[in-house]
Amino acid sequence: MANEANGVQIYCTDCGTVMQGWKETICRCGGTWDVRRPIASMDGERLRRLFDERLGQRSGVYASGVWRYRELIAPELPEEALVYRGEGNTGLYDSTAAAQYAGVRRIWLKAQSENPSGSFKDNGMVAAVSHGRSLGNKWFACSSTGNTSASLAMYAAWCGLQSLVLAPAKGISPAKISQTSAYGARILAFDGTYDDGIRFLRQSAEKLGLYVCNSLNPYRIEGQKSIVYELAQQLDWSLPDWIAIPGGALSHVSALGKGLEELFALGLIGRLPRIALIQAEGASPFHRMVQSGAASLTPEPKPNTRASALNIGNPPSWRKALKALQMTNGVTAAVSDEQIMAAKRIIDRSGIGCEPASAATLAGVLKLRTEGIIDGDETAACILTGNLLKDIDALHELYENAGDASGGTLNVERVAELCSVQASP
Amino acid sequence: MANEANGVQIYCTDCGTVMQGWKETICRCGGTWDVRRPIASMDGERLRRLFDERLGQRSGVYASGVWRYRELIAPELPEEALVYRGEGNTGLYDSTAAAQYAGVRRIWLKAQSENPSGSFKDNGMVAAVSHGRSLGNKWFACSSTGNTSASLAMYAAWCGLQSLVLAPAKGISPAKISQTSAYGARILAFDGTYDDGIRFLRQSAEKLGLYVCNSLNPYRIEGQKSIVYELAQQLDWSLPDWIAIPGGALSHVSALGKGLEELFALGLIGRLPRIALIQAEGASPFHRMVQSGAASLTPEPKPNTRASALNIGNPPSWRKALKALQMTNGVTAAVSDEQIMAAKRIIDRSGIGCEPASAATLAGVLKLRTEGIIDGDETAACILTGNLLKDIDALHELYENAGDASGGTLNVERVAELCSVQASP
Repeated sequence: MANEANGVQIYCTDCGTVMQGWKETICRCGGTWDVRRPIASMDGERLRRLFDERLGQRSGVYASGVWRYRELIAPELPEEALVYRGEGNTGLYDSTAAAQYAGVRRIWLKAQSENPSGSFKDNGMVAAVSHGRSLGNKWFACSSTGNTSASLAMYAAWCGLQSLVLAPAKGISPAKISQTSAYGARILAFDGTYDDGIRFLRQSAEKLGLYVCNSLNPYRIEGQKSIVYELAQQLDWSLPDWIAIPGGALSHVSALGKGLEELFALGLIGRLPRIALIQAEGASPFHRMVQSGAASLTPEPKPNTRASALNIGNPPSWRKALKALQMTNGVTAAVSDEQIMAAKRIIDRSGIGCEPASAATLAGVLKLRTEGIIDGDETAACILTGNLLKDIDALHELYENAGDASGGTLNVERVAELCSVQASP
Repeated sequence: MANEANGVQIYCTDCGTVMQGWKETICRCGGTWDVRRPIASMDGERLRRLFDERLGQRSGVYASGVWRYRELIAPELPEEALVYRGEGNTGLYDSTAAAQYAGVRRIWLKAQSENPSGSFKDNGMVAAVSHGRSLGNKWFACSSTGNTSASLAMYAAWCGLQSLVLAPAKGISPAKISQTSAYGARILAFDGTYDDGIRFLRQSAEKLGLYVCNSLNPYRIEGQKSIVYELAQQLDWSLPDWIAIPGGALSHVSALGKGLEELFALGLIGRLPRIALIQAEGASPFHRMVQSGAASLTPEPKPNTRASALNIGNPPSWRKALKALQMTNGVTAAVSDEQIMAAKRIIDRSGIGCEPASAATLAGVLKLRTEGIIDGDETAACILTGNLLKDIDALHELYENAGDASGGTLNVERVAELCSVQASP
């Protein structure tokens, strides 16, 4: 795939080595691969027209909210290899309730939770699976705390391919692992963490003939760039002052930064928004690194947050994440589980809904506003990464006392009391 | 709303009385209301062009997969009263696996499970809430086993309105009730059935100032017609031989029949497909009525099926359902929970996924094929009514042994065994 003829190179972000052929996992130096595209030679105006024209498509590959932007994601893959299953095309909601909560001028909620498997992972996974399929792979694998595995399992099933999921036996969402299993993935639950699973795949995937779909796969990042492309297109190519995203494995911020850089270089957006990367306090090694000014990331050996999608102690993409932050004059913040669940309540009760990890964004905007880093007159987009239905335990905890669950008979008096209304005679 | 000037009438399907003003619940005779539109005076060709043009819209009210068809759903409501939140626009999947399983030529899966609240209920609910809002209501209520309540609660939250859900304390999906609660509904769990809740609302809703959003609300049916409009449009206005839908409260089949009748009368489709209405064996009073040739429905006092969305013993819309069946030369079938779960496995493992009730459609097509009622050369669309994530207990039961959940260490040998692959040296 790395092909000088079409100007595409895959190179190591650490040592600069250019990949020859396809190495599925990591560079010999231990660094991660990234795809370099000839953005400077592309015609931004032509692309904008093309992307806008494709909005009218309702079927076929270019109706996908990822492949609409194919020229920036993977033009080097043959069209017949491209997988699509309704990903992207997610809603963007102008939320007064969220803006009031955080004390800023305007907040848009970008609901990647509306993707087919219920999370933002589909945007990147569809590109990785397309790439792996173009090379003739049969087995696709990942280490996952949930959303990644469900997305991989869905796309593998959709294409008639096989998937293997390495899942930490503890601390994952039952809904996510059940969903993964339903799509037919082989699941190996092990005693260890997400990070242990990544380490195993780095060492053994080639030996086992597994195509690795974690975010160290550079096509995950390429596909995931489509989130900010779509956000920009929905806002008529003018982005808000801030984009807030949750930070777990940090592939999301890497993709966001790369997508922004490209949009800016192409002249599709006139200025760069600032990135606000929000981690959960119990799993915030990246935030701590940025705060302390340390030169490298010290993993958190025992990550611990209620927002299961963020429960990652050794994020593999921290170098790319740092680059994205620096490029956009971005900031980090860490929020408590209580702050996350309070923000989730706002998002849920606005009729949008999300899983806890997604709500870290709104909690983070509030925190950064309180600290004076975000101004009250500024605007922000919060990327909602996972569907409300993805993490049902969180609902039980938060909402079990929201009504009258006592059973018993139904009568006018009970209803009138519960709703604080008066019954007419 | 009932307005002779624009040719729209709301009338009782039992006694024929034309509604004067708006009565929220039922006719004095006990019958249900229906909306009559001046279809005969409408220009089908003009409508088709209009609906096709609107496919290019990606924001605003006409980007909705319901309001795209506004002229057939509720032109009498003022545009500013129309609620929309990304409903409809769901995927249609040509599934070889499903066709092979049922032994028919071709099966499309129409994934209403991709609606914003995760079920087909959004199509009808958005119309009912729009209508209720146009009348100035503040409190919206329903009796529900789950999907209806989640949909209502979502739209009420989205519009800043209040919702009340009467929920049977037993036999409902925890995911659905948690979702409902998350959106901020007041929930009253009571000892009784869905049918008891309906009876209470019929008697007491007006007294309590509640706008009732169950399917006895005729705007639920009007909105729900959009499912078959969209299906027809996606298939370039040519429907398959059969449309299979699950039967619980029977509003779905009523809406489907009405939508088909209109499409045919307008010349938008050249022939009517046959409806296959599938019930779960443990909750199949309508199927039994049809089979026995009885003149009226005998309720099932203790409905009992694993497919919780179908667990309804006294479906309020059975008269409309019968009319729809007769018009399309339709049939009914009842399938066991085992047959439902086996069909669910096929749909899940094709990468689409659904809740158990939805899988009754595919199980029913297989059964009707086996009985020779559906021919092997025929085609069918199965309407998937609810998202995979809506009924997670079902997943645990079915899939808990799909992998290796034993924990322990991660090594090449375990992976090789689980995936039946050979590790290279």
